[in-house]
Amino acid sequence: MFFCIKFYSFFNKANTIPKNNMAKDLTNREKNYSQWYNDLVIKADLAESSAVRGCMVIKPYGYAIWEKMQAALDKMFKDTGHSNAYFPLFIPKSFFSKEANHVEGFAKECAVVTHYRLKKDENGKGIVVDEDAKLEEELIVRPTSETIIWNTYKKWIQSYRDLPILINQWANVVRWEMRTRLFLRTTEFLWQEGHTAHATKKEAMEETLQMINVYADFAENWMATPVIIGTKTENERFAGAIETYAIEALMQDGKSLQSGTSHFLGQNFAKAFDVKFASKEGKLDYVWATSWGVSTRLIGALIMAHSDDKGLVLPPKLAPIEVVIVPIYKGNTEFEKVNKVAEKIKNELQANNISVKYDNRDTHKPGFKFAEYELKGVPIRLAIGSRDIENGTIEIARRDTLSKEIIKQEGLSEYIKQLLEEIQNNIYNKAKNFKMENTHIIDDYEEFKKIINNKGGFILAHWDGTPETENKIKNETKATIRCIPINNKEEKGRCIYTGKPSNRRVLFAKAY
Amino acid sequence: MFFCIKFYSFFNKANTIPKNNMAKDLTNREKNYSQWYNDLVIKADLAESSAVRGCMVIKPYGYAIWEKMQAALDKMFKDTGHSNAYFPLFIPKSFFSKEANHVEGFAKECAVVTHYRLKKDENGKGIVVDEDAKLEEELIVRPTSETIIWNTYKKWIQSYRDLPILINQWANVVRWEMRTRLFLRTTEFLWQEGHTAHATKKEAMEETLQMINVYADFAENWMATPVIIGTKTENERFAGAIETYAIEALMQDGKSLQSGTSHFLGQNFAKAFDVKFASKEGKLDYVWATSWGVSTRLIGALIMAHSDDKGLVLPPKLAPIEVVIVPIYKGNTEFEKVNKVAEKIKNELQANNISVKYDNRDTHKPGFKFAEYELKGVPIRLAIGSRDIENGTIEIARRDTLSKEIIKQEGLSEYIKQLLEEIQNNIYNKAKNFKMENTHIIDDYEEFKKIINNKGGFILAHWDGTPETENKIKNETKATIRCIPINNKEEKGRCIYTGKPSNRRVLFAKAY
Repeated sequence: MFFCIKFYSFFNKANTIPKNNMAKDLTNREKNYSQWYNDLVIKADLAESSAVRGCMVIKPYGYAIWEKMQAALDKMFKDTGHSNAYFPLFIPKSFFSKEANHVEGFAKECAVVTHYRLKKDENGKGIVVDEDAKLEEELIVRPTSETIIWNTYKKWIQSYRDLPILINQWANVVRWEMRTRLFLRTTEFLWQEGHTAHATKKEAMEETLQMINVYADFAENWMATPVIIGTKTENERFAGAIETYAIEALMQDGKSLQSGTSHFLGQNFAKAFDVKFASKEGKLDYVWATSWGVSTRLIGALIMAHSDDKGLVLPPKLAPIEVVIVPIYKGNTEFEKVNKVAEKIKNELQANNISVKYDNRDTHKPGFKFAEYELKGVPIRLAIGSRDIENGTIEIARRDTLSKEIIKQEGLSEYIKQLLEEIQNNIYNKAKNFKMENTHIIDDYEEFKKIINNKGGFILAHWDGTPETENKIKNETKATIRCIPINNKEEKGRCIYTGKPSNRRVLFAKAY
Repeated sequence: MFFCIKFYSFFNKANTIPKNNMAKDLTNREKNYSQWYNDLVIKADLAESSAVRGCMVIKPYGYAIWEKMQAALDKMFKDTGHSNAYFPLFIPKSFFSKEANHVEGFAKECAVVTHYRLKKDENGKGIVVDEDAKLEEELIVRPTSETIIWNTYKKWIQSYRDLPILINQWANVVRWEMRTRLFLRTTEFLWQEGHTAHATKKEAMEETLQMINVYADFAENWMATPVIIGTKTENERFAGAIETYAIEALMQDGKSLQSGTSHFLGQNFAKAFDVKFASKEGKLDYVWATSWGVSTRLIGALIMAHSDDKGLVLPPKLAPIEVVIVPIYKGNTEFEKVNKVAEKIKNELQANNISVKYDNRDTHKPGFKFAEYELKGVPIRLAIGSRDIENGTIEIARRDTLSKEIIKQEGLSEYIKQLLEEIQNNIYNKAKNFKMENTHIIDDYEEFKKIINNKGGFILAHWDGTPETENKIKNETKATIRCIPINNKEEKGRCIYTGKPSNRRVLFAKAY
């Protein structure tokens, strides 16, 4: 019995120590940005590494952000005429090899299924692979689905009347990465991949552009993250694409994060899989293709773009919880009074389609809860105590500015709706200002190196257009050409490295 | 030029022949039920076989049904307190082997990843597996996720305060099936799997029952399919479960289809992965577990339960398109008149949250369209022509009864809303009557065999409780015990096969 009591009190005590020690243990961004990110993903309960090398477990709070992203993107895809479908996880090795650049780009990071059965080892060594169940042809776990999809489209397309095909797939993919980081680069990740087929080059180009604009729209209006849209250089292009468009977002450490890509595939995959159609004019021609995707990497971008040393800062539109209510009380009588009003406020907010959590746990003190929701980036925190009940007031705290004020309970829903919008805009504007302040127009290579080595940021500079120069700059500075911005106007200049003539500035940065 | 014209007209003509030849070529259910099903899945554009053995491509129309199912189920899971999360696709072989019954049940149908890289063959034989990239430990593509999840829960659970854990995952899984059929049994399928952890046996049992009831509710109220809830016999139990609850639905060919399962896993997985918690009383105990799932197999059940020789019959609540509008006209002038009213009706229906498609293609005749939407199971078809414009009327046709009537355009939305409900109920009642008519209470083994061999159906009969008897009946009749219904009252009787005493009737049927 004595043992039991001791034991209980040990666990009880252990549990009153905040499990993650909250923001106290969050590394400062200044001190070690990379560690800060890793800490935050774990402490905010977003994800963790699994027992499978490079694969992550996305925890409920992290997955709830992904669900919000999915809902918004899915609507945007459907509004632009796309439907969802589902294609196999496995790709026969022979399909995978059909487009030369494609296989070149992905072969080195493929999970390969070779057998389809396990058995008990005859020598009692447990469960082993059954060598009698070897596949005739190995199957690749999809790193992306162009090949299996274009093999399918071949059956679906005969005439221009079968076009366009506008399909998206929500799926998991696997790329055997050597160095992984939660959300940013994992062996398995979740994503969506659009795969469209068109009768004309023009239409396919328009689709490619439409979708990179959808991504930019999502990044700016949902993720509150300004982006630069541009095309990739040959070095950075998707394996099998004619042109790759990307959106690039600037993180707080001055590095760029590629947040979405849209590829104009030309007729490459149609040729690899022999997909022809009869045009209106009765000519046979290869079909034109695009593909485009964003992944759970966006969650990494979201974290890094806005969060601070106290934890996550989430734009309201993607926050799993928009408002949290914390009751402040001593003893049961006070709790009952406060609880009644808090419940009423919760119901009122919910009725106004605001996602709200009422945290009435009596196992944790208000201060602990405040720190927890700061860590988790809940945009608005309401605290209500006895004096508020008397005065008809409530304390409202913003996560983005960390400011507090006392307001009247009357008209609270309306106030909160406006405040959520204001917070969304404020987070966006902050990121936009940061991007402006850290975008440099540079014509001198020494200055270029200084910036890249110190604060980082976006650098707009002239480039002579050759992969050789791009590689040399990369080797010397670790900066790469993130994209050739599509909105940059033509401007005569000289390559920052070779001095050769150039027609427009390109975007350099170190990248994730 | 001559060639071109000929060519064009060939394709043009080819395209006016309905691609699938519509219902005309649908095999009759009476003639060959199995072929009817296969035809229907293909012709209604739901899914098709892929180039990967046993894996299917779920086409947009089929996937849209899955999306409707997902939305309804996801809400039901969240309303009962569950959150979504995501766990790795791969399971290390050693985890997989930890629960003895579990590995026994799944080892024979596992896709195994053994390598993580491809390379160019040195002898120019194309792309081959890189033998230098052999995994130290093989990875199993998840056939279900108990093992990887319980290995993770071990880290999450220390005390009773960490419980319950109520998590669901939407995912793809792989089971290497030898004989596959679209939706019903495929190597890869989509599903959800709930995995919960509890402090007490009682709570875990309640969860198991809650979730089988959620499934039954979904089957009846969304899929319009009555089901019988029961427990599985030892023979049919999930590998690793103490008790498996299932819902069984009767298909039109008299076979039963297991449509969802909820498992009480006891402490089996907690023991296998050493997951203990400190109880309120300070004792260390193993955690109690449940798991539960439904899959894209439900689409197979939906098709087989209600459809007819003209095609799909979809309950409105799961129909991707609830209402289709077909304009009837000759020439442009008439079209413009009809089009204007049709557009107005479409907008009005959409404003009332009815999912509507207006098919104004001028490449197909109304008769063709009628057949197409019958094949695709759209619950309500509206046809509108010049005379309707004059009279302010519209023709409304029901897919479930194939009946037609002319009604006033005024108040159409309200009428359609009620009609959709009526159709949902009618489809359910039809299935319920079918189930009642084909459920037999049998005490004589000869009669049992006669029914099973002829019309099939559900048979409620006494059984002596032994696997031996169950196996003998299975070998002689192909009928298995689908479940021991939980709502059957106790009733003394004698086993239909051995004559030994029995306390309750169990449910026999041939099964998918």
